Amino acid sequence: MDSPVALIPQLAAHIVAAGGKRLRPLLTLASARLCGYPGSDGGTRHVDLAACVEFIHTATLLHDDVVDESRLRRGLASANAIFGNKASVLVGDFLFARSFRLMVDDGSLRVLAILSNASATIAEGEVLQLVTQNDLSTTEGRYLEVIQGKTAALFAAACQIGAVVANRPEREEQALADYGMKLGIAFQLVDDALDYVADEATLGKTIGDDFREGKITLPVLTAFLAGDEAEKAFWRRTVESLEQTDADLDHAMQLIARHGAIKATLDRAHRFVQEAKDALLVFPDSPIRRALERVADYSVHRAR
Amino acid sequence: MDSPVALIPQLAAHIVAAGGKRLRPLLTLASARLCGYPGSDGGTRHVDLAACVEFIHTATLLHDDVVDESRLRRGLASANAIFGNKASVLVGDFLFARSFRLMVDDGSLRVLAILSNASATIAEGEVLQLVTQNDLSTTEGRYLEVIQGKTAALFAAACQIGAVVANRPEREEQALADYGMKLGIAFQLVDDALDYVADEATLGKTIGDDFREGKITLPVLTAFLAGDEAEKAFWRRTVESLEQTDADLDHAMQLIARHGAIKATLDRAHRFVQEAKDALLVFPDSPIRRALERVADYSVHRAR
Repeated sequence: MDSPVALIPQLAAHIVAAGGKRLRPLLTLASARLCGYPGSDGGTRHVDLAACVEFIHTATLLHDDVVDESRLRRGLASANAIFGNKASVLVGDFLFARSFRLMVDDGSLRVLAILSNASATIAEGEVLQLVTQNDLSTTEGRYLEVIQGKTAALFAAACQIGAVVANRPEREEQALADYGMKLGIAFQLVDDALDYVADEATLGKTIGDDFREGKITLPVLTAFLAGDEAEKAFWRRTVESLEQTDADLDHAMQLIARHGAIKATLDRAHRFVQEAKDALLVFPDSPIRRALERVADYSVHRAR
Repeated sequence: MDSPVALIPQLAAHIVAAGGKRLRPLLTLASARLCGYPGSDGGTRHVDLAACVEFIHTATLLHDDVVDESRLRRGLASANAIFGNKASVLVGDFLFARSFRLMVDDGSLRVLAILSNASATIAEGEVLQLVTQNDLSTTEGRYLEVIQGKTAALFAAACQIGAVVANRPEREEQALADYGMKLGIAFQLVDDALDYVADEATLGKTIGDDFREGKITLPVLTAFLAGDEAEKAFWRRTVESLEQTDADLDHAMQLIARHGAIKATLDRAHRFVQEAKDALLVFPDSPIRRALERVADYSVHRAR
């Protein structure tokens, strides 16, 4: 994060120090270890590349918070709320560029290909989300495309590069990419459920953000499709036209509960978690494989 | 620019089709040719890399226009004015990622190092510009740091990679980087002068933008330092406090003219152009070297 331009490390340190789960770099470290890296030579490439992954994630968070006008992130004021949108856009660009520079130092064109593809896919997912926002005719398939792009692609890449540094065969690389992709989808499904049920202090971000922005997530789609005409009209007014009163979020949460939409979303997440764990079966049982399985279970049982 | 998410090629095509001088990719093409690339094998790496350079430039333009709240770019409504800030931020990210993917396909880690460094330096220059905005105590040295970062670094990289694809020795690579750096500084000095003297229809963007945002450029610094107390108070009110009336831009232009600040800025640009041309003297005289010399001359004689 270092730079002679003091605002850059200041802003970057704010978002990094705020914490976060560090799930993506953990996936790179654990995937590398699952593949036997480092061996007796004590290599540290997985550590450097885990940092690259977290930098890319941090850059997208900075830009997301600008795009979503978020005021809260990881329990603290968001970087854009403190330093302004302009600084957040530019420091995001800086971290993104710096991340590619770190990959160049690592020297693997294969890693660069995986992470530059993932970065383009993230942006595609975010744009698709923007396009489907406020549009209740969005299909579930479209919604899954959005979360595969904006979230799961980086989970997949983070895992896949663990196999790349360990020089493992294509089959294992693909298994880890599958694990990461399924895990990432499950993770985002849970995120989208939490936005309608979580405890705000525990979640560390404002609850109901998705509703206020009219984001089309699975809880909303499920409740909308199961609703009667009056309920459909409610969703059209609040989510499509963004005409909302203070009581609307509570009503939305009631409708979502009434139609079992949280349970449906979490069931969906559970199935993806099972698929994620199944993908790991190409590897023999080991403490590190079990740790990755527990990471998958955690992703659906977390409260934030 | 291709993507299944239709808004991405739409938005990207808008800014690309609006034109622009294509100066940076031209520098890559011409630098490669100056270095004897392609030889008889008819390579096309310089074409692909010229596209990378223009993609990085386009991504920064999309983000700049969001940061500067610009409404006009290349004589048309800016992308953010038509598609919104959110889409501009995200499509900028997409183009940036895609540009790195193109470099990976080219396969040179040296090119990747040069362009990832340049990308980080651009962001640093933009952040430094944000920090010095509205601050009349900014020194000329600081101002030169800003324009080296935000503009000249990519000019330098665009030229340098021309030598890299041609496998030329370090000395020629460095000469082309120097040429690009000096040319880029001159180019931005002229840009900053044009913002106070240009004809808006010819310029293709709104005149006086820098003044309205309180950007500290050489014309303003020169007029401010040469001004009497009343003039200094004028600059403090308008540029530092951003308290501006409709008549203030005209008055600013008069003060700038009275103190010869445009001439001083252009004289400075002329000296950098001479240094840029001198850097090319490590190459023997040739039609392509003369073309690059004329590009340098053009950069100070242009009207937009």
